[in-house]
Amino acid sequence: MTSPALDKRLMEHLTWQEFDQKVRENAIFILTAGAIEEHGPHLPIGFDYMMGYEIALELANRYPAVVMPPLTYGYRSQATIGGGDRFPGTTCIGAEALIATVRDILEELLRHGVRRIVLINAHLENQNFLVEGIELARQRRGLEKLGCKILLTGWAPFVKDNTLDALFNGKFPGWDPEHAALLETSAMLGINPGIVDMEKLPDEAAPRYPKYSIFPTPPDIVTKNGALAPATGSSIEKGKMILADVFEGYELAFQDEFGLSPAY
Amino acid sequence: MTSPALDKRLMEHLTWQEFDQKVRENAIFILTAGAIEEHGPHLPIGFDYMMGYEIALELANRYPAVVMPPLTYGYRSQATIGGGDRFPGTTCIGAEALIATVRDILEELLRHGVRRIVLINAHLENQNFLVEGIELARQRRGLEKLGCKILLTGWAPFVKDNTLDALFNGKFPGWDPEHAALLETSAMLGINPGIVDMEKLPDEAAPRYPKYSIFPTPPDIVTKNGALAPATGSSIEKGKMILADVFEGYELAFQDEFGLSPAY
Amino acid sequence: MTSPALDKRLMEHLTWQEFDQKVRENAIFILTAGAIEEHGPHLPIGFDYMMGYEIALELANRYPAVVMPPLTYGYRSQATIGGGDRFPGTTCIGAEALIATVRDILEELLRHGVRRIVLINAHLENQNFLVEGIELARQRRGLEKLGCKILLTGWAPFVKDNTLDALFNGKFPGWDPEHAALLETSAMLGINPGIVDMEKLPDEAAPRYPKYSIFPTPPDIVTKNGALAPATGSSIEKGKMILADVFEGYELAFQDEFGLSPAY
Amino acid sequence: MTSPALDKRLMEHLTWQEFDQKVRENAIFILTAGAIEEHGPHLPIGFDYMMGYEIALELANRYPAVVMPPLTYGYRSQATIGGGDRFPGTTCIGAEALIATVRDILEELLRHGVRRIVLINAHLENQNFLVEGIELARQRRGLEKLGCKILLTGWAPFVKDNTLDALFNGKFPGWDPEHAALLETSAMLGINPGIVDMEKLPDEAAPRYPKYSIFPTPPDIVTKNGALAPATGSSIEKGKMILADVFEGYELAFQDEFGLSPAY
Amino acid sequence: MTSPALDKRLMEHLTWQEFDQKVRENAIFILTAGAIEEHGPHLPIGFDYMMGYEIALELANRYPAVVMPPLTYGYRSQATIGGGDRFPGTTCIGAEALIATVRDILEELLRHGVRRIVLINAHLENQNFLVEGIELARQRRGLEKLGCKILLTGWAPFVKDNTLDALFNGKFPGWDPEHAALLETSAMLGINPGIVDMEKLPDEAAPRYPKYSIFPTPPDIVTKNGALAPATGSSIEKGKMILADVFEGYELAFQDEFGLSPAY
Amino acid sequence: MTSPALDKRLMEHLTWQEFDQKVRENAIFILTAGAIEEHGPHLPIGFDYMMGYEIALELANRYPAVVMPPLTYGYRSQATIGGGDRFPGTTCIGAEALIATVRDILEELLRHGVRRIVLINAHLENQNFLVEGIELARQRRGLEKLGCKILLTGWAPFVKDNTLDALFNGKFPGWDPEHAALLETSAMLGINPGIVDMEKLPDEAAPRYPKYSIFPTPPDIVTKNGALAPATGSSIEKGKMILADVFEGYELAFQDEFGLSPAY
Repeated sequence: MTSPALDKRLMEHLTWQEFDQKVRENAIFILTAGAIEEHGPHLPIGFDYMMGYEIALELANRYPAVVMPPLTYGYRSQATIGGGDRFPGTTCIGAEALIATVRDILEELLRHGVRRIVLINAHLENQNFLVEGIELARQRRGLEKLGCKILLTGWAPFVKDNTLDALFNGKFPGWDPEHAALLETSAMLGINPGIVDMEKLPDEAAPRYPKYSIFPTPPDIVTKNGALAPATGSSIEKGKMILADVFEGYELAFQDEFGLSPAY
Repeated sequence: MTSPALDKRLMEHLTWQEFDQKVRENAIFILTAGAIEEHGPHLPIGFDYMMGYEIALELANRYPAVVMPPLTYGYRSQATIGGGDRFPGTTCIGAEALIATVRDILEELLRHGVRRIVLINAHLENQNFLVEGIELARQRRGLEKLGCKILLTGWAPFVKDNTLDALFNGKFPGWDPEHAALLETSAMLGINPGIVDMEKLPDEAAPRYPKYSIFPTPPDIVTKNGALAPATGSSIEKGKMILADVFEGYELAFQDEFGLSPAY
Repeated sequence: MTSPALDKRLMEHLTWQEFDQKVRENAIFILTAGAIEEHGPHLPIGFDYMMGYEIALELANRYPAVVMPPLTYGYRSQATIGGGDRFPGTTCIGAEALIATVRDILEELLRHGVRRIVLINAHLENQNFLVEGIELARQRRGLEKLGCKILLTGWAPFVKDNTLDALFNGKFPGWDPEHAALLETSAMLGINPGIVDMEKLPDEAAPRYPKYSIFPTPPDIVTKNGALAPATGSSIEKGKMILADVFEGYELAFQDEFGLSPAY
Repeated sequence: MTSPALDKRLMEHLTWQEFDQKVRENAIFILTAGAIEEHGPHLPIGFDYMMGYEIALELANRYPAVVMPPLTYGYRSQATIGGGDRFPGTTCIGAEALIATVRDILEELLRHGVRRIVLINAHLENQNFLVEGIELARQRRGLEKLGCKILLTGWAPFVKDNTLDALFNGKFPGWDPEHAALLETSAMLGINPGIVDMEKLPDEAAPRYPKYSIFPTPPDIVTKNGALAPATGSSIEKGKMILADVFEGYELAFQDEFGLSPAY
Repeated sequence: MTSPALDKRLMEHLTWQEFDQKVRENAIFILTAGAIEEHGPHLPIGFDYMMGYEIALELANRYPAVVMPPLTYGYRSQATIGGGDRFPGTTCIGAEALIATVRDILEELLRHGVRRIVLINAHLENQNFLVEGIELARQRRGLEKLGCKILLTGWAPFVKDNTLDALFNGKFPGWDPEHAALLETSAMLGINPGIVDMEKLPDEAAPRYPKYSIFPTPPDIVTKNGALAPATGSSIEKGKMILADVFEGYELAFQDEFGLSPAY
Repeated sequence: MTSPALDKRLMEHLTWQEFDQKVRENAIFILTAGAIEEHGPHLPIGFDYMMGYEIALELANRYPAVVMPPLTYGYRSQATIGGGDRFPGTTCIGAEALIATVRDILEELLRHGVRRIVLINAHLENQNFLVEGIELARQRRGLEKLGCKILLTGWAPFVKDNTLDALFNGKFPGWDPEHAALLETSAMLGINPGIVDMEKLPDEAAPRYPKYSIFPTPPDIVTKNGALAPATGSSIEKGKMILADVFEGYELAFQDEFGLSPAY
């Protein structure tokens, strides 16, 4: 009988014998890549990895899956999508660290015989480095010959256009300025509302959103509070709409790629 | 008022403003380095990081400290001290990933103005790579001129010889074979007993403990169950003895190096 | 008098004395990052860098700018945005090569006293690696204290929504599947029509566009011809519309960031 | 029918289908490695890569060859052979960038089935780094088992002793000080005279040519104009003599190594 | 007949034909990893590699072995075990250099068909980096399939507890503070007494030995002379006791792992 | 009084106090970079480093110099200048290892206050990697501001043309094929004749010496014995001629760069 102190969805809570059993059962191994990055006055700096991890945990409720310890530290925050490195608390790693970590972990999974891997990227800046980690593991170990499939997903791309239309009354400004704003805040409210400080929802937009990146960051492209667009109006209800799309997205993905239906 | 969903000892649960406040208060930032490594039939593969993290959390109860997200994945398990990579579940990273990650995170802390840093290394194999991460951050950012002090600690070195004598009736065989054995098992029992499966305590010792490393690992230097020495006889009481030494060790260290007394 | 064999917009065609003069005049140095990647049956595999380079050359007609030798080889092509590495001719470099190259070139420019730098990224896969190259040069040399500004731009983000609406009758499917399709083909037609083989415009769409990446690439997410969406209907006229937006985008950017008006 | 805007000797101007056809025809793939480096008052800073590229293009006129996009940026200029990094315009990359780029590009060619590869190194400082790029690709992919042959050539070694005797009246001082001097200037006059500014031929020699390298560069081992020896007396006629040797050298090389005769 | 100037125990003194013969004879190849590090007023800074090398040479007197050129430069000296980098003369390399060197040399041995390799680590700080060098060579070349065995040894672990008891009258303080102290000094006296300056044996202990590492090094954890504990009382006789244990340790190791008995 | 077991020209034989004294005396620190590479049937595989090291030791007889532990392992042997990696015994390291090692050691010397450094490169293949090591140390620590000068020398470039004329009767074929041939063999005879096995002097030349490198090495560009040209006719007398030039070269270099005259 499993102790209540242990959560057997979590890879680190398994014994090696239980891990082995999961591999034999062809479980999906889910690795979340997040970040420690300022998220305005109302969200904790661990938001990105926490959001991805909540989704991973819920997926493990629905599918035969193993939730791996998340990559909490992510790639350097960029001003126009994450506020940038000038905010206290934003604590990031560079390309070398992220690429090598992902490469090594994936190689270990392949060595153990894992054949279904899902990366949840919950911090946009990580994206290409996760790709490189996968590509390097692929070069070294192969995927085809092993019969292994890796999905690199985000939760945001699964949100449907009509949901965005509904949430923004048809005026969705695009995902980039949505840092610590209505969508992220609502999504977290939908899955773990205790994380959000509702009394501090910011109501400001960055003075301008340039269509390019500027180094060093000029002062007028990020708000002083750190959110890039207003979070006011965020609600649990909106979060549920967002999450419904996200889990439908994973449902279709797991069906299309792994031939799986949810277990619940 | 802080939400019950948030634990304000944890760095990732702080907002950036709260993080900034902690830096201004000269809080100690604690980073745990663990591993995902087989730990016998009775302990989860996340043992190393979980043990270090429990200690970090307890230190944050006693001192003005911030517990950083731990480094869950550690350096490649070695047969004579950690069972080695042949066991399912042992999921490690290499030198490049670990060094670069530690270097980058420390540089970020230095950039933010953190001046008291404690690394808790809970996986012996990590040790020199943590040193290199610290040395590289020191080369790039300096420590002296910043007035920053970094302690690299483990919990095991704080256990006193007379405690070991008492626990082993004067026949302590040294720390190396103590992987997943009496000391680790008891220590976890002392701090979070729900983690240990008491019905599966292994009672076997590796056939031999060579005084050198052998590559590739021969079959007779690791037990089949993964523990390198017996865990039978582990108890909460023994764990309390071990932990008393550990926290006394930290108490002296924080006093000597930071001029701090515990707050409790 | 300059020889007709030399084009004094090009950095490599300057003598070192002329280069020095350009730096003293505070010219904008423009570096294009492209790729060698399959682009369907109607476009050459150098399309990405050629497109970016054409824009750079035109910018040098309008502004006091120096066009640097482009980075022709780009990061590994990804199936859902560039067809992937299975096509003959797709000849890419990895993260290490691209990051180190960008870092080193930027450090050299900073060393020479260049204070206005524009990167044109014409291959989506390059993006984060260019960021890392910039970040590393920034770490090592500083930007603020040098008074240097680096813009990282793409041409696609400057195309306006109403242009996309006009070109696609309100049904723009997003940029990702637009690889070697109507937008890229028309843009090239608008600036250098001799590059496009109009008799081979592909008219096929990939069977499906997943909202995530799959490794290894399944056969049904890329067409056999390599374009991800139809290029039929591409025209010089449409290209002129696209390019008008692009150059207006650069005009505003150079005005906002460098305080410059076009010279023509 | 090929558009006049495209030059089908160039790899980047091929479609992927045309590239594939070239591979099937066992074409020679030619990669030039040059540099952006001061070349005195009369030659552009792109001289090294431009010279190598002109040779590559001419080889493609004579042999079934594909000219790849050149590596324009080269390894750090050294004072006694290239003037060093103190001159404006000298814009170089380090070992990591050059090695990784060459390695990756060669691996891609090997992956595509290319079996005859020629590197033209037109910047002496690149040499060992090109070797390492080749060695790493060889380690990872193999060459023997693939039946692939790689030639690493320069143009200068093909110039015959009696030509050098004729050009220097028997007093050839060796290649090292010939940077931006008579040989390079004449060679370019022989193949693309419009590149050379004949009114600015320098007529000075460096005060001394030490038989070793000195760091940092002392002021008396490089001329102020950047050429290391006089370029006066350079002529198209001398260039033709040089180039005759060069192309004869390639002719013999292609015959000996690839069993090929020129097609012209 | 071999020249007296050559010592045929040494790999570098063999011709390639003799090297080949040694490989065919399945000789043990011994690589020493040392350091250049302050060793108090009485021992030279090359102590670590010299001590390891003396042992290697003696092993070659007893076994069919080839002594490889030692790695003289070692990993960064750490204050609590080697005095740290503040002492003149301590001249170290970082993780990258050490790992890559070990990896490359081992890969070469494997390529040549060597099947018995012994590393003697004579500088504690090197340990994990030697492991990583071995692990990387193992990943790339394999060991099992080649039938190759690598032993990573130190000389200190072979010294028996009862010897330590005898030498320290039952009060052995552990190996860490034994830097340049009684054990190292005696061991060298036992094998090459001319190395030790007996008139300068230090008699001081570091004021304190913390059970953790501190960065930057505080002034009170290292003595001014560089030794971490007294060397007074060191003697040839004690050295002989130590070395007897060491060579017995190797004898057992070579017997257990290689099935070899000493030849003497 | 110094023990006869110690040679105080050697850095590793100094105590840290003696090292410090040498730095204060502004001694020249000499680092030899060699290789372990086949050298025909008559020379040991350590020839390159041994030759450079003999020169370093002799320089320390003549000048206030410290001879550092040599870099015995060198960059990958190339067929046309060193026989290549197909010969047993040729045991090399790659670019990463060599660059990082040189960089780190030089940084340490700069840190210690050394202001005169001489590298003796005795293995042609090392050359550019030594340059990169120097360049990286220069980037990180500076040289100008420290007042430090580094000379990168070889012994071969100091041999005068008229000496080569005399030795080869005016038919010197260039240094490249002189691997393990008359010049190297005689030079060693001139400085340490016991190293050479005079009964095995090879008398064969490689069938052809291409003016370019070929990968993989074809069988007809290296002799079976490993020397690239005949060593017959080598003599101590010829070696003395060669060495006279070499030491005259160093004499002039030390005079020109360091303002030093020999002390003997």
